[in-house]
Amino acid sequence: MSETRTVRVELGMRGYDIRIGTGLIAEAGAHLAPLAKGRPIVVVTDATVARLPLSALEHSLGQAGIKHKTVTLPRGEGTKDFAHFARLCEEILALGIERQTLLVALGGGVVGDITGFAAACLLRGLAYVQIPTTLLAQVDSSVGGKVGVNLRAGKNLVGAFHQPKLVLCDLDTLATLPLREFRAGLAEVIKYGIIYDAALFARLERDLPKLLQREAKTLEGIVARCCEIKAEVVGYDEREGGLRAILNFGHTIGHALEAISSYGKYLHGEAISIGQVAAAELSAKVFKLPAADVARIRALFEAAGLPTRVDLTPAQRRKLFSAMRLDKKVSGGEIKFVLAERIGKVRFGQRVPEALIQEVI
Amino acid sequence: MSETRTVRVELGMRGYDIRIGTGLIAEAGAHLAPLAKGRPIVVVTDATVARLPLSALEHSLGQAGIKHKTVTLPRGEGTKDFAHFARLCEEILALGIERQTLLVALGGGVVGDITGFAAACLLRGLAYVQIPTTLLAQVDSSVGGKVGVNLRAGKNLVGAFHQPKLVLCDLDTLATLPLREFRAGLAEVIKYGIIYDAALFARLERDLPKLLQREAKTLEGIVARCCEIKAEVVGYDEREGGLRAILNFGHTIGHALEAISSYGKYLHGEAISIGQVAAAELSAKVFKLPAADVARIRALFEAAGLPTRVDLTPAQRRKLFSAMRLDKKVSGGEIKFVLAERIGKVRFGQRVPEALIQEVI
Repeated sequence: MSETRTVRVELGMRGYDIRIGTGLIAEAGAHLAPLAKGRPIVVVTDATVARLPLSALEHSLGQAGIKHKTVTLPRGEGTKDFAHFARLCEEILALGIERQTLLVALGGGVVGDITGFAAACLLRGLAYVQIPTTLLAQVDSSVGGKVGVNLRAGKNLVGAFHQPKLVLCDLDTLATLPLREFRAGLAEVIKYGIIYDAALFARLERDLPKLLQREAKTLEGIVARCCEIKAEVVGYDEREGGLRAILNFGHTIGHALEAISSYGKYLHGEAISIGQVAAAELSAKVFKLPAADVARIRALFEAAGLPTRVDLTPAQRRKLFSAMRLDKKVSGGEIKFVLAERIGKVRFGQRVPEALIQEVI
Repeated sequence: MSETRTVRVELGMRGYDIRIGTGLIAEAGAHLAPLAKGRPIVVVTDATVARLPLSALEHSLGQAGIKHKTVTLPRGEGTKDFAHFARLCEEILALGIERQTLLVALGGGVVGDITGFAAACLLRGLAYVQIPTTLLAQVDSSVGGKVGVNLRAGKNLVGAFHQPKLVLCDLDTLATLPLREFRAGLAEVIKYGIIYDAALFARLERDLPKLLQREAKTLEGIVARCCEIKAEVVGYDEREGGLRAILNFGHTIGHALEAISSYGKYLHGEAISIGQVAAAELSAKVFKLPAADVARIRALFEAAGLPTRVDLTPAQRRKLFSAMRLDKKVSGGEIKFVLAERIGKVRFGQRVPEALIQEVI
């Protein structure tokens, strides 16, 4: 097999490897064979995934002697709703699956989240593997076992914790990713710097041009570091009893923005870019995050080509705040925030008066 | 509080009590207060539940100072589908729940299964309590954490393992249960005798008239014994890696019968009554279950007023077998059965040639 980096998610019986490298899909059959255990598997993908990765995967499965069937979802965040989820479950069941059937999600975050949730629920739990094909899915959504679908009321309001058996991050898939989507993925990459690793943040400031050119070695190092951070956080706190909440930096406002724009206008990464800059400003007000750090944060998102502000009508603003109150992080009627003390260090569960939130949006 | 029996489900951190007795709903507030932790709770019920238990529960919550909101589902097994599940989730979310919100299921198996699944998925997991109001739900579906909904392809094909925090079996609710439903519950009661406890089976043969008159002391002893058996089995094998499969005695054929009649013609208990008699006949063919035991099994179901045979057209028969192949218990393409060696002792995971199954239906 080709040279790959491996990051282990330490979760005891539910622990698993994330493998990061080039050419991984072309050899996926060899990685999947121990998990398929001689049985036919089901690949779920969507119309966004280029023909190339899917044919490479199918070819590799054939070489490894793994029979498979493929289910293709329509593209886009709209696919992550209940109606599509129900249809996906019916479709997978119609293939004649059993409790030992392995599901494989090939695609971006939407495919991974909905397939993972199907795996969590079908026959009360099937094993599954993530093969994320976007930067955002590779550094974030494919790792950690949070799966689910959106309701009209908000994002991921119905879901489960269901860990995959393996994650294959094939960096080749990033080469053909549309620029807008690649940039959206950078929003999660920058987040890891802010919440956990000041050195990563500085490296991003320095290497951003190389990253935007998608230089293979730079990408590999950055993706692997992000996966390491996520694996470490999830390994401490699988079900978000505490620490894991730091991963939601910028997400309270971000999710609400996505919800009120009906998951259409903003990509997830764009929404949380706006959300993170707002959270940084809140942090300056509440925690004395240095103004210089706020400026560096804003500048890095801007350099990455991401939006950092939003203009809302009074009606949209009201909708935004009521969406925020529906967020999973609400407790005792108060909206809790992750706030930064400095770049590389955040605290979760911070109460913020609504007036302050109004000021920064 | 009134005198109650308590059966403990031993599942470590996820362990919980089943309380069995009369007058439990009227004092539910006191039982629920430690779980509600001062927060408003959500009660889910359906139109089948008599006005009395719901008002008793609401009164008791009021006395205990627990605020609540009630969501009422339409009645019947048809309610346990994806569309109703999605609507229930949206409706509960619209009440402004948080991760600490407690759900309470007041009703029969359908209410318990769909509410439990909503609890498993909403905000990726809420705590919930079962207050089963039918015999079937008290002895079976409310205990053990199997929750889910039906798909067109079959029963409970989408679901989760999500244990309740408490089960309250108020025997008063059984007094007004329609006769047909009470009898359907007896199908699960008899099952415990067949799979686990020959003495229980003999006691049922003896006490059936008192049971059918719903004599309080008899009911209490029988319901408690059934809960004990279920708790013991689930305590050994929460996620059905092995032993728990014995609880599916009669269910492979029973579920398929329900699926092909679109969850309308047969109550669950009626379908598994037919399924258990067929499984007993298969057991006689494959395991040498004594013919006398088969006769006792059939006679007890008949004495309970339950159907023990079904007449199918050739087209229905074909549908039945294809529904059976979709069952969760299928492995390696083979339909696995729970078969009896003698009354009180069964074995799971038994392969049975399809020709033999054809003979007994």
